[in-house]
Amino acid sequence: MHPFDPIRPDEITLATSILKASLPGISLRFKVIDIQEPIKQHVIPYIEAERTGQPLPKPPARLVYSYLHRLDTHAFLKAVINLDTKGVVSLKELPKHIQGPVDVDEMIGLETVCLKHPKVIAEIEKLQLPDGVTVCTDPWIYGTDDEAEHRRLVQFYMFIVPVAHPQSNHYSLPCAFSPVLDANSKELVRIDYLPTGRGHDVSETQPWKPVKAVEYAHELLETPLRTDLKPLIVQQPEGPSFSLDGHLVKWQKWRFRVGFNYREGLVLYNLTFDGRNVFYRLALSEMTVPYGDPRRPYHRKQAFDVGDVGLGITCNQLSLGCDCLGHIKYFDGFRIDSAGRPVHLQNVICLHEQDAGILHKHTNYRNGEATVVRNRQLVVQMICTVSNYEYIFAWVLDQAGGIEFEVRATGILSTIPIDDGEGLNLPWSTPVGPGVSAPYHQHIFNLRVDPAIDGFNNTVTYEDSVPLDPEQDGIEDPFGVGYVARTTVLEAAGFADTNVELGRVFKIRNDGVVNAISRKPVAYKVQTVASQRMLMSARSFNARRARFHEHAVWVTRYRDGELFAAGEFTNQSRVSTGVDVWAARGDDVRNQDVVFWHTFALTHNPRPEDFPVMPVERLSVHFKPVGFHEKNPALDVPNSQQGVNKSTLVEEVAKEVKDCCKL
Amino acid sequence: MHPFDPIRPDEITLATSILKASLPGISLRFKVIDIQEPIKQHVIPYIEAERTGQPLPKPPARLVYSYLHRLDTHAFLKAVINLDTKGVVSLKELPKHIQGPVDVDEMIGLETVCLKHPKVIAEIEKLQLPDGVTVCTDPWIYGTDDEAEHRRLVQFYMFIVPVAHPQSNHYSLPCAFSPVLDANSKELVRIDYLPTGRGHDVSETQPWKPVKAVEYAHELLETPLRTDLKPLIVQQPEGPSFSLDGHLVKWQKWRFRVGFNYREGLVLYNLTFDGRNVFYRLALSEMTVPYGDPRRPYHRKQAFDVGDVGLGITCNQLSLGCDCLGHIKYFDGFRIDSAGRPVHLQNVICLHEQDAGILHKHTNYRNGEATVVRNRQLVVQMICTVSNYEYIFAWVLDQAGGIEFEVRATGILSTIPIDDGEGLNLPWSTPVGPGVSAPYHQHIFNLRVDPAIDGFNNTVTYEDSVPLDPEQDGIEDPFGVGYVARTTVLEAAGFADTNVELGRVFKIRNDGVVNAISRKPVAYKVQTVASQRMLMSARSFNARRARFHEHAVWVTRYRDGELFAAGEFTNQSRVSTGVDVWAARGDDVRNQDVVFWHTFALTHNPRPEDFPVMPVERLSVHFKPVGFHEKNPALDVPNSQQGVNKSTLVEEVAKEVKDCCKL
Repeated sequence: MHPFDPIRPDEITLATSILKASLPGISLRFKVIDIQEPIKQHVIPYIEAERTGQPLPKPPARLVYSYLHRLDTHAFLKAVINLDTKGVVSLKELPKHIQGPVDVDEMIGLETVCLKHPKVIAEIEKLQLPDGVTVCTDPWIYGTDDEAEHRRLVQFYMFIVPVAHPQSNHYSLPCAFSPVLDANSKELVRIDYLPTGRGHDVSETQPWKPVKAVEYAHELLETPLRTDLKPLIVQQPEGPSFSLDGHLVKWQKWRFRVGFNYREGLVLYNLTFDGRNVFYRLALSEMTVPYGDPRRPYHRKQAFDVGDVGLGITCNQLSLGCDCLGHIKYFDGFRIDSAGRPVHLQNVICLHEQDAGILHKHTNYRNGEATVVRNRQLVVQMICTVSNYEYIFAWVLDQAGGIEFEVRATGILSTIPIDDGEGLNLPWSTPVGPGVSAPYHQHIFNLRVDPAIDGFNNTVTYEDSVPLDPEQDGIEDPFGVGYVARTTVLEAAGFADTNVELGRVFKIRNDGVVNAISRKPVAYKVQTVASQRMLMSARSFNARRARFHEHAVWVTRYRDGELFAAGEFTNQSRVSTGVDVWAARGDDVRNQDVVFWHTFALTHNPRPEDFPVMPVERLSVHFKPVGFHEKNPALDVPNSQQGVNKSTLVEEVAKEVKDCCKL
Repeated sequence: MHPFDPIRPDEITLATSILKASLPGISLRFKVIDIQEPIKQHVIPYIEAERTGQPLPKPPARLVYSYLHRLDTHAFLKAVINLDTKGVVSLKELPKHIQGPVDVDEMIGLETVCLKHPKVIAEIEKLQLPDGVTVCTDPWIYGTDDEAEHRRLVQFYMFIVPVAHPQSNHYSLPCAFSPVLDANSKELVRIDYLPTGRGHDVSETQPWKPVKAVEYAHELLETPLRTDLKPLIVQQPEGPSFSLDGHLVKWQKWRFRVGFNYREGLVLYNLTFDGRNVFYRLALSEMTVPYGDPRRPYHRKQAFDVGDVGLGITCNQLSLGCDCLGHIKYFDGFRIDSAGRPVHLQNVICLHEQDAGILHKHTNYRNGEATVVRNRQLVVQMICTVSNYEYIFAWVLDQAGGIEFEVRATGILSTIPIDDGEGLNLPWSTPVGPGVSAPYHQHIFNLRVDPAIDGFNNTVTYEDSVPLDPEQDGIEDPFGVGYVARTTVLEAAGFADTNVELGRVFKIRNDGVVNAISRKPVAYKVQTVASQRMLMSARSFNARRARFHEHAVWVTRYRDGELFAAGEFTNQSRVSTGVDVWAARGDDVRNQDVVFWHTFALTHNPRPEDFPVMPVERLSVHFKPVGFHEKNPALDVPNSQQGVNKSTLVEEVAKEVKDCCKL
């Protein structure tokens, strides 16, 4: 077993038994048992010995942590266990205002509690639904609007299910009432009524006036499917170009480990290129989705999909031929159930190659001789379903040392009921069907980048392109054309922002290793996404809970346990306990073990075309070597050749086909 | 023949004979004979009859234009010819300061003139090159630094060819002298000496101190090629999903015409989706590449690759299996030679489908039932080699009504010689090998978008996302979370800028057609590229010649003949005669025949990894329907299915494979 391997079922079973033994006679409800990140200073000698082919030292201690509830007192506990010694490292009761994430059993259980509650049943009866039409509910993160609130609350948005089909689109038919339950006591706290007009007014539940749902399931469409899409098959007759050894992947000079946990889902560890360290750990650390609807209870709609729920437990279990093409390797994962037993998650991560057009090409125009190399990529992907929405997260590695983190947003918009009679157009929402609208919202992501550019001590800088200054640069610029790059070094932990006007480029470099060609420290650049900040007021809970939104880049000195941009506990949090707090320490970060955090966002004012299921909206962060190599590291990729690629000419009469790329 | 069809060889021959007949007894040198855009008001009835299945009216007149020189007076002429009537519409001598674009024969001829000139030979001899080492030259656009200059000048950058191999990388070994020739008189004007140190100083040509070139040709690499890249084959056993009729393409609800001319290369015409008009014409209108090196003669390095040369004549003639995978349709083109004869350009545009991952997905978490549709795309691509650089331009159409214009920059950096002894680091340039450096530069593109959103009269707006204002929006926002979109209509021709902080989105809408769901005018949005402006001073010729760089968006009222953002003649131009001039008319552009121009840029401070051939750097502009449809127009795309996709599981022991996308 490797220090970066995900948790195994026997480890879950062992941890559960250790926890039960340490809390004898107490009924427990388990939320999470998962690996605790190993102590970095203990891991480094181990992975460096691996990288350099030395004898392996003792691996770091195998630690797991657990969130659990005492069923007697409802106290929320956190425990850390050393599996090697089978001992409890720490076990503490957390303050009353801290709520752990939701877990799968809790949500499923609460759905049933809600739908069986007599007051909810009575409310549903007021809808006077026709036969065959039912109601379902999506439990929602409660958000925060009251610092004094200590209960664990869940907001239930109710929808009409128009037809008994497994993909019936209930999001097209939202109800105008919304029960709130206490997740611990299972009591109904109240029923919120949803405003359906221009203002804050609400009204009592009225009989449903039947309208057609906007369906996406092919069996429910009223028009036939298109018939002119021909098959496109990716064949790899010699198999994939990657090789595997457990969670270790080797591909085209890259070597890395695939990690998985309940919270972040996919994690990449210990990425090296051509035997050189590049990154220690890469993962999406947090995301938050605040909604722009000012009306109660919508002001509380702010999900933290990583911290409140967990990308690992919302991962789709993928199927061959559906989510990727070619030769696919799937990785499984494990979560726990509420009794602390392992639950097998099949195929939660997929790994495959893809062709992405041309990587580089040059034609000598004098003779038409061309070198052309195709852009083969390796994709490591997970797809998460968070109730209505889907996120497709992919790490894409290329042959020239580049890495892309791609987010695709798809799935179904979060919807609200609206009065439809007079053509209601709310300035914060887009009508997407009869009586249904999709409020504006933002997806704000934070990517945690733990770099290891040719070693574990790095420096973060940014470079701005500005007109040359004759005095500063010591040269006349008679025609006013000169421009230069100015570097700013982040000396102390803190933050920085993107700047389109200055063409700002962030770099992570190793001051101890100088490139023989560029004569500058070896580095990677981060092509950050320039995006809008959170639109909510600084006084809002939304902004205060997610202060990572305030800057595109945060830099902190590495400390074990600092993984999540909004803090460890986000569910009903009042304030961030994350990267903003750690950056405020102002630690020296020049040539230190630094962590680079990138916040980027998608302001999503829905289109009607985004309903009932949304064509992907894509965002990408790119990491590229810049003076890390002395020249293009992909020069040794063989030329693109017809003999290999076997492309086909679309012609009545085929032209002569040559197996080369000459003119 | 269709009004949008590219020029045919018989049309070239006819035009040449008409021109010769109209200038009897005068020796002529032809630069360009190509189609003149047909009068839009004459085309619209024709293409609307096609679209609606009505009898076709008379097509518009078939016009061609020509640039040519009188060899007696060196006068530069422009002619317009009506091929239907075989008459000359206009023939005029252009002012002396106007230089036409370079043409292929001119460049090849001048290379020879330069290399055979005794003074150039004498200069080369001073290098004292060893046996087998030769010199070649890249003729360069002269740029502008003097309003009084009326000669047609060419700057020759000289390089050492270290080995007699057709792909020997001479750009790795630049010489420090640069002849300037008069392209008309063929006289050597002078030899410029290139500064190689920190300042403006130059020195006489010295004997070459041999250094190794950084080579890219696989045969010249000192290390073996990688052997672990396995074939990836795209199979389309039932053929492509597109159908063709001449230059008409039909694919997945799209219908459009592929155009081609010497200047813009690829043009898309008359794009409709599901029978509805979307765009009248799409093409890259101009690009300029100014360099940030302040020293003579580098201050003049500013290519306009569209206007100075032409993307059509620099198009690569593509080869099957090298530049794209799958089933490929190639389109040919024609240019002229200096005698006015047609020259066949084979395979200058390619058309093929690609798979781009998932288009949309939703899983009902209650039962694991998923709808997942793959993102099949149609790519229309050309690849241009402009001396050292390569550009890959692709229009990518999707099944949900989206269009992406993708630019990939690749090829070889433009290089300069540097003194290498003391680790010279110029603040405007990156060393990329021994004695060679690659100056910082910008690629500034302008995309001309002639929209036809459900009709030919459209309105351009932009939408900013801003916090809700209780007074203006008439609603309290007690928790400070509300945000709304504010629309600004461009009433008069002019410009606008991107704004990341406001999440600005540009839209082109049809005020005469209201979407029944959104209750707003049907529209497309343009996801503009937020990028840095030109860094050169406003007083510089660089900035004044390319004023399109000043704003990300320009809007003009349509006029025939207004196609190129920097004006018709860019070679040695002194000032822009393009979109800035036309926008300054301030025409009413609300609900009019408008043109939308988008400027976007790449500030390219080279990496050592960009040499000797550069991994692609990508930029994309996206066009997406927004309230153009009442719902996702790709709902009718069949589900992704293993039975069709035939993916393969990478496992020692294969798991059970189901032909579905259920959990």
